Amino acid sequence: MSILIKNVMLNGKETSIHVEGNTIDGIGKKEKAEYVIDGKGKAAIPGFVNTHTHSAMTLLRGYADDLKLHDWLTKHIWPLEAKMTEEDVYWGTKLACLEMIKSGTTCFSDNYWHMPAVARAADEMGMRAVVCEVFMDLGDPERGEAEKKKQVTLLKKIREMGNERITFALAPHAPYTVSPENLGWIKDLADREGLLVNMHLAETEKENAEFFVRHRKRPVPFLEDIGFLGGNLICAHSIWLTRRDISILERHNVKVAHNPVSNMKLGSGVLPYKQMMASGLIISLGTDGCASNNDLDMFESMKFAALLQKVHDYDPTIMPAQEAFYMATINGAETLRINAGVIKPGKLADITLVDLKRPELVPNRNLMANLVYSAKGSCVDTVLCNGEILMEAGKVEGEDEILEKAQEVAEDLFSR
Amino acid sequence: MSILIKNVMLNGKETSIHVEGNTIDGIGKKEKAEYVIDGKGKAAIPGFVNTHTHSAMTLLRGYADDLKLHDWLTKHIWPLEAKMTEEDVYWGTKLACLEMIKSGTTCFSDNYWHMPAVARAADEMGMRAVVCEVFMDLGDPERGEAEKKKQVTLLKKIREMGNERITFALAPHAPYTVSPENLGWIKDLADREGLLVNMHLAETEKENAEFFVRHRKRPVPFLEDIGFLGGNLICAHSIWLTRRDISILERHNVKVAHNPVSNMKLGSGVLPYKQMMASGLIISLGTDGCASNNDLDMFESMKFAALLQKVHDYDPTIMPAQEAFYMATINGAETLRINAGVIKPGKLADITLVDLKRPELVPNRNLMANLVYSAKGSCVDTVLCNGEILMEAGKVEGEDEILEKAQEVAEDLFSR
Repeated sequence: MSILIKNVMLNGKETSIHVEGNTIDGIGKKEKAEYVIDGKGKAAIPGFVNTHTHSAMTLLRGYADDLKLHDWLTKHIWPLEAKMTEEDVYWGTKLACLEMIKSGTTCFSDNYWHMPAVARAADEMGMRAVVCEVFMDLGDPERGEAEKKKQVTLLKKIREMGNERITFALAPHAPYTVSPENLGWIKDLADREGLLVNMHLAETEKENAEFFVRHRKRPVPFLEDIGFLGGNLICAHSIWLTRRDISILERHNVKVAHNPVSNMKLGSGVLPYKQMMASGLIISLGTDGCASNNDLDMFESMKFAALLQKVHDYDPTIMPAQEAFYMATINGAETLRINAGVIKPGKLADITLVDLKRPELVPNRNLMANLVYSAKGSCVDTVLCNGEILMEAGKVEGEDEILEKAQEVAEDLFSR
Repeated sequence: MSILIKNVMLNGKETSIHVEGNTIDGIGKKEKAEYVIDGKGKAAIPGFVNTHTHSAMTLLRGYADDLKLHDWLTKHIWPLEAKMTEEDVYWGTKLACLEMIKSGTTCFSDNYWHMPAVARAADEMGMRAVVCEVFMDLGDPERGEAEKKKQVTLLKKIREMGNERITFALAPHAPYTVSPENLGWIKDLADREGLLVNMHLAETEKENAEFFVRHRKRPVPFLEDIGFLGGNLICAHSIWLTRRDISILERHNVKVAHNPVSNMKLGSGVLPYKQMMASGLIISLGTDGCASNNDLDMFESMKFAALLQKVHDYDPTIMPAQEAFYMATINGAETLRINAGVIKPGKLADITLVDLKRPELVPNRNLMANLVYSAKGSCVDTVLCNGEILMEAGKVEGEDEILEKAQEVAEDLFSR
């Protein structure tokens, strides 16, 4: 189908955007299309790319807050996750997709269990997704073998879906939960098959200290020594890094997925943003899961990212609005290797329209500042992904059913 | 008029709230009223009390961001404020009131210029407001005399309005911009007339250091020595305080208005919350003005307040959701001396209804966590203040005109 978004604000002036199939094929040129969207009073921005989340954790929203990380994980999150079925993950992910679409996100990178359910939900909701099944062996060779088999099966399954929006990636949980041998196996598979690799890295000071005791090395030099680092690796969190760690990551073109809201809520720490920027690392933005955020609003994550750096260094000039916006869009697209993150001809038609007629966006003097410091997900009016309309005038098809089913599934999960 | 809000969630169960005149007169008892609101699928919470803002700074939203505090103030904010007319302030405050109502705030404490315009806007919009005209003499006795006359005139003017929702208060700008003699005059007037006093305190380390050079004392002991401290004093920011400062403030029952978003955006610093809580100080929540926030959403301010403390101390247990909520409601009401901040019989009918059928509030397992960590202003459906309906089903009367006029006025201001 062809779509024309007319009279829309783009980069400071009113123009039109023409979409043919899944691609933007013209700005301000063509005047006709099979479907026309009136963009008057709206601004077009690239759909956000959320590079680190655990979508189905929407079901755990408000379940365990204000707790120490270790208690939170071992006493609350893990025991409940162990009870989750594929059906739970399906509805949790549907709810996550709904929330992401309504707040202007078109692509997400997911780390969770029951991946086929995640892929099915993303497929149905029309979103672009990088899907992973978390790989964790805890040093147990038998578990490792089973995990490896599972990954190969899932890779095949996702490829058989043949959905251009859904990509399989590998997700070794963290350097301290996967054996070096299996990290090597993952690296080989990823290189051979051209896959992205998602991993948690240096989220807490404690995990680094324990790793050092075990391996007599910090995680980053260790990963370099075993040949694990590369341009296809995306490291979530990456807080507790030395300057040397950062320069090693940069040398190998490793990408960082920053999760400011989660890092603050869990009291984990502050991304060494200034040092990372100085080194030239690509940093993108994630919300993390709803148990540690507790929402999936990328507008909010941009504001938290920028303000956290400013107060941390007592310097309001750090991470100006534009940088936070790039993290949430073009850097995310580069990280996930999708041809999006910016609105111009030849790019994928992943587009969000922001309603400018809202008190928090008036006056509209500096749209970039308004987007990062004032806008919320609720300012989003219309969302296109891959040239399909996922939301128009604030409405997503089937949203009431998703809210009801997700509530039902969550209640059932808690009663088990 | 009497109003019945039926089938509404309140403190975990479905009930009804009956309002007679400006007061809540029954919970779950009366079944009839002149006007009935269907509260099904909504939760009733007290209207938020924003204890520190500069409302008309909405006009400066997005005007000067990501700048050093001194440059921001002296090169951008102050020169533009000097050009503001009473008409500008009126429309800026109307816009602020619209934004506050739409995000569930029913009462605000304002510090700005052209106070009659602020009072007129709050009056028309139906909000409760504490209005102040900033008092600044910069050590100039003539300016001081003029300021004193102005305050007396304004006090008379506001009292003559005879609006029970609008209260006059005094607002010496800061210890370093008002002479000790005039601080004494303000304290006397406040005590004699039963007025609240708003002041900026210890927002930056720099101002404290400069104050010490001039007076050989830190601001708090200095204010104590001149007899300025008392239970009617509300100190905004109050970041750079020693333990001794905090214990002095507590001894005099001084109130603190915390502005986490502004403090982060300007890179000012982190409220010593743990020490303040240990001392028993009453801490409430403010958004500060839109030039340093850049919105007026108290939901967002609660989340920022809680998460800033957690990451600052690397401790996720600090400031649990309920504490942040109290800061935004009951503590604010106590600070501004209004009989509100909680929904029960005998309290003023300042009530916000939150729409629970939104993806970010599903599942509804822990409403308090959802309110503080997931909800945004856009979740607000209906707002009552002083027993009057200011918003119903998301609509405020005259909102389109306010957005248009505010945009127009801002453009005109920038072109001067």
